[in-house]
Amino acid sequence: MENIYFDNAATTKVDDQVLQIMLQYLSENYGNPSSVHSLGQDATQAVDHSREVISNHLGCAPAEVIFTSCATESNNLAIWGVLNSLIGREGNFHFITTSIEHPSVMEIYKRIEKLGHEVTFLTVDDNGIINLEELKQAIKKNTVMVSVMFVNNEVGSIEPVSEVGEIVAIEKSNRESNDLPIYFHTDAVQAMNYLPVKVEEIKCDFLSFSGHKIHAPKGIGVLYIRKGVKIEKLTYGGNQEYGIRPGTLNVPSIVAIGEAIEILSKDQSKHFKNISKLRNLLIGELTKISEVKVNGQSDHQSPHVLNISFLKAEGESILMMLDMEGISVSTGSACSSGALEASPILRAMGVPVEWTHGSIRISLSRYSTQEECKKLISSITAIVDKLRKMAPEIK
Amino acid sequence: MENIYFDNAATTKVDDQVLQIMLQYLSENYGNPSSVHSLGQDATQAVDHSREVISNHLGCAPAEVIFTSCATESNNLAIWGVLNSLIGREGNFHFITTSIEHPSVMEIYKRIEKLGHEVTFLTVDDNGIINLEELKQAIKKNTVMVSVMFVNNEVGSIEPVSEVGEIVAIEKSNRESNDLPIYFHTDAVQAMNYLPVKVEEIKCDFLSFSGHKIHAPKGIGVLYIRKGVKIEKLTYGGNQEYGIRPGTLNVPSIVAIGEAIEILSKDQSKHFKNISKLRNLLIGELTKISEVKVNGQSDHQSPHVLNISFLKAEGESILMMLDMEGISVSTGSACSSGALEASPILRAMGVPVEWTHGSIRISLSRYSTQEECKKLISSITAIVDKLRKMAPEIK
Repeated sequence: MENIYFDNAATTKVDDQVLQIMLQYLSENYGNPSSVHSLGQDATQAVDHSREVISNHLGCAPAEVIFTSCATESNNLAIWGVLNSLIGREGNFHFITTSIEHPSVMEIYKRIEKLGHEVTFLTVDDNGIINLEELKQAIKKNTVMVSVMFVNNEVGSIEPVSEVGEIVAIEKSNRESNDLPIYFHTDAVQAMNYLPVKVEEIKCDFLSFSGHKIHAPKGIGVLYIRKGVKIEKLTYGGNQEYGIRPGTLNVPSIVAIGEAIEILSKDQSKHFKNISKLRNLLIGELTKISEVKVNGQSDHQSPHVLNISFLKAEGESILMMLDMEGISVSTGSACSSGALEASPILRAMGVPVEWTHGSIRISLSRYSTQEECKKLISSITAIVDKLRKMAPEIK
Repeated sequence: MENIYFDNAATTKVDDQVLQIMLQYLSENYGNPSSVHSLGQDATQAVDHSREVISNHLGCAPAEVIFTSCATESNNLAIWGVLNSLIGREGNFHFITTSIEHPSVMEIYKRIEKLGHEVTFLTVDDNGIINLEELKQAIKKNTVMVSVMFVNNEVGSIEPVSEVGEIVAIEKSNRESNDLPIYFHTDAVQAMNYLPVKVEEIKCDFLSFSGHKIHAPKGIGVLYIRKGVKIEKLTYGGNQEYGIRPGTLNVPSIVAIGEAIEILSKDQSKHFKNISKLRNLLIGELTKISEVKVNGQSDHQSPHVLNISFLKAEGESILMMLDMEGISVSTGSACSSGALEASPILRAMGVPVEWTHGSIRISLSRYSTQEECKKLISSITAIVDKLRKMAPEIK
């Protein structure tokens, strides 16, 4: 049975072209970039090229691009890096983030709270968008980091990151040289594929993303760190990555993520339009089902995520029954699936609990087709009907 | 020009069989193990299988095997994990390590010293082996971690890790329940290929290794953590890896490192013997050159590393001239190459500075052949002769 894959927010298929170039560095060109000989220097050149492609795409300098093992590591490196760089400064610090961050940001801030610092979790509206006035009010003299994700992974809401960057920039310019620093960090994992991501427009100091969400392999991440920003590193070892991230460079995956960026940068707006059409098709047809609700429907919406709730039908059951038909969807983020509690993201958006239980996440990619969407529509329509007939008393 | 590769202590070629199985998870089976659907569960099964292969090889339980991105991360997770788990306990702590650790251990301990804790760096003899009496004397009431590498990366000396494990076990049994814990950590990166590595024989609490030194790809590491040992995690995020190491699992590379372990576990002693013969051939012929010295020649020696010094010939020059003939060697560890200072490992072994400058590291693998060794011997013989004639006044 051919798999129809609608879980691209969890992970994506590696692009064939990406795989081909990666293979070269998994087979013949296997040198360690830290080695002086030709095989090592070939690897160095490949890494340099990938770094340059990524820096061009982000609109930054190559030396501002750090390769890590995943976006989780990138987020940890940024946030702990800032906090640990402040060791020795008096008092506790204040951090601002949102109530809908991915666990790789949220769990760090929960830990930071436990360590005795203060964290403000910004609320979101019913489309999953933060309020800029609330952010402005939240900033204090001891606020050192603002972390706002670019695109939410469960509902696809696009946060006003450029406006956040502007607010943080104004606060920066108001601070004296002896004051604490303040930085803006954005987790751009879900934004990279279909939105232009330019660090100068966002005015961010840190930006993270991973390979496996953009049709490159798992096990590779990037952290953009603005020139001049001093952080304390998380791990110690060799001098790789400008002394910030030690460990033998994962050359094949670094080459792969560079190639993936090169590919996506070419037709980003075309793919955005195509996927928007598919999302609209899905919404148009799926909302013909009774008692249905789309979670996240503003103008600030990435087209690759559609979170939709069906009353009186369990999301898990829909997922399992779709899976039996060879169709992959999710009930929330992959990182929190398995847990049967209601999604904290949907709760933060004010979705009532009876709706959160019946939610599924359909996440598209540039490989998704209209035929696949039509198949999905007919399958979901039949499954929801069946489930409701099976358990008419579910509340 | 075909490359002749004698830099296997820096990184190794991915085994064809490893690459084939990895490819499957880079192409069709691209699911995220955190996903509930079939594609995700296929990935989970593949990860489980790899974890089981590795735990069988190490002689431990599957749940004691944690996948990381590299041995550097594994070492950091172990050492910081222990230190950070002691936050809240009074006083400073004492750590013991050796003076010949890889930078991924050495740099952590230099940092820990700066944070105000005490670190003892055990000396080594002229073969690069620690003294067990010195270790026994060094242990104090507040010693919480002993880190001794299994096999040194620059000279191949095999440390008496089982004896270290025994000494730490005795100290453990002497401590009361309210006392500080004491753990034994070993960096086994260079031991995995050609030595049996069994955690019960070593009595270690932590053991780390990486994929790219055992003919699996770069970007994957393992940390063995003994059941019951509590550490503080280094990064926060999803619940992957028993809550200890968050981030989407690098499925293709996890499958690959499992396959690499499966392969090496079959013919380990045969490869040990073959490589020993090649090393003996190299030593026999290269020591016919005048003013030559083998660094590390005890009975406790891994055959895959030969560190050899030529007086009045620069190691860097030998490396470059070999490279022009398509032969890859190193002048020390890849992580510290580029730096032209004398190797700290050789200095710790008491090698005089005029000898350290002329040292190269020849590191073999199970793919190395007698023909390649003969070519290397004739090339080095000619190059050293040429260099000495070019610069007869070098001291």
